[in-house]
Amino acid sequence: MFETVAIVGPGLIGGSMGMALRTRGLARHVVGIGRRRKSLSNALEVGAIDAATLDVAEGVQEAELVVLATPIGTFAALMAEIAPAMKPGAVLTDVASTKTEVVETISACLQDRPDIIYVPAHPMAGSERRGPLAANEDLFEGAVCIITPLADTYPEDKSRVTDMWEALGCRVVSMTPQGHDRAVARISHVPHLSAAALINSLEEADMRVCGSGLIDTTRVASGPPSVWLDICLTNRKEIAEALENYITELQELVEALESNNVDRLREALRTAKERRDGLRARGEPRRERT
Amino acid sequence: MFETVAIVGPGLIGGSMGMALRTRGLARHVVGIGRRRKSLSNALEVGAIDAATLDVAEGVQEAELVVLATPIGTFAALMAEIAPAMKPGAVLTDVASTKTEVVETISACLQDRPDIIYVPAHPMAGSERRGPLAANEDLFEGAVCIITPLADTYPEDKSRVTDMWEALGCRVVSMTPQGHDRAVARISHVPHLSAAALINSLEEADMRVCGSGLIDTTRVASGPPSVWLDICLTNRKEIAEALENYITELQELVEALESNNVDRLREALRTAKERRDGLRARGEPRRERT
Repeated sequence: MFETVAIVGPGLIGGSMGMALRTRGLARHVVGIGRRRKSLSNALEVGAIDAATLDVAEGVQEAELVVLATPIGTFAALMAEIAPAMKPGAVLTDVASTKTEVVETISACLQDRPDIIYVPAHPMAGSERRGPLAANEDLFEGAVCIITPLADTYPEDKSRVTDMWEALGCRVVSMTPQGHDRAVARISHVPHLSAAALINSLEEADMRVCGSGLIDTTRVASGPPSVWLDICLTNRKEIAEALENYITELQELVEALESNNVDRLREALRTAKERRDGLRARGEPRRERT
Repeated sequence: MFETVAIVGPGLIGGSMGMALRTRGLARHVVGIGRRRKSLSNALEVGAIDAATLDVAEGVQEAELVVLATPIGTFAALMAEIAPAMKPGAVLTDVASTKTEVVETISACLQDRPDIIYVPAHPMAGSERRGPLAANEDLFEGAVCIITPLADTYPEDKSRVTDMWEALGCRVVSMTPQGHDRAVARISHVPHLSAAALINSLEEADMRVCGSGLIDTTRVASGPPSVWLDICLTNRKEIAEALENYITELQELVEALESNNVDRLREALRTAKERRDGLRARGEPRRERT
């Protein structure tokens, strides 16, 4: 599928991509680009990449596909090095969890490189762990990958990125960057903040008697704060709005409890179960949860 | 440990207790009492019980330990049959998720049986599944079990129930019924309602693009609505109060997002991660999650 792929940031997501591209024979050569020697040597060791370099320009120059898999906050600075170094007509993708601001930032950095094909993507997979040692070649198996192609992208170029994600096991869905950010605020960002708020509202003594419900419900709150801060800051408006809706839903439960409104409580619990069971029926990700 | 144990309602919790009591040699004979033949035959088949009966009085009459493991809403009616039939000096325990109202109800039913030793318990284990086919002999391994002994219970009687839960793998913590209900509102009931509200606030289209974060965060919402309705109705005041605190926490996040308060967002995410990692360090339940 690709001769050479460059992965900028071969951590959990980038490293899992590298592993899957290699073991599935989708890339002949995977170059990992990072800032820390230790992290790159871990990525080499687990088989996420074939070669490693600290030099961004050198790392991307031979690649037909460059994957930007670092935290969002690093994109502008990295793109200043990546954009001039990329091969003519090469494909660029990113795996960021927010899209509107990210697409603007990256597109601006590509102004002098109209030949580069940029197809933004967001694989909805991950875990609260990070780094190449958490990488897993089946991470994307059964997951959804949202792509947010630019208006002027040719269908065949879109297909190159779509085909790759499908080959990694994803179901690919296409949205606008704005539609993505609105949906993902509800699907991913509010769940994260709800878990963070849940754990922050516990008292110290509670921590000693928690059960499996709390453990599962708050798992995502162990995710890296710096990554989640970037997500919050680049999708503030949509997250705030979705959080407000969530709070309204919770306030209705408080009212139902206070007024002893049995029917309303029963209905909320019943609807939630029905919808959650529906989620499962559509297939929970098959990979092992870490 | 016990010659005969009667389990009223050998479903997920009761059935898992029966299995564990049998396989660990803690009971020589486990009688299952239920309302439906099918459910009892399933409990027999999976090895949760040795014998089954639809007759409550008959089922409990030989037992030194009677475990009430049915939904809270059935307790008063069942106790009218159980109380007169129990063996002199036998031990009664329940596994309900709320305690203040439950202890009042059961104690009232035991007014004519001062010889019966009632030690209320709440094993903090479970899953969103139910019924004897979901039972698992290691369900309690590594879990916390809260007991809420009455003021006049002799220490040696308390020990009989404590020792049993410890033998099933639990860490036993003692609280007042009121202290239990307040803590568990935060630890278990609010997480459940937060998951229900989360899933209820999604739009239909969102359900097709969910990731593993949402799957984990909302798992508990698949729990049986009737069980959770009972829990809500018997712990209304504490749950409403804990939900209000949770909403306040969420509103602070909305404010931080709207005012672009980076420090406050970073601090909330950092604290949540630190506390959630602390939960893990104390040991997540070792059993397999279903």
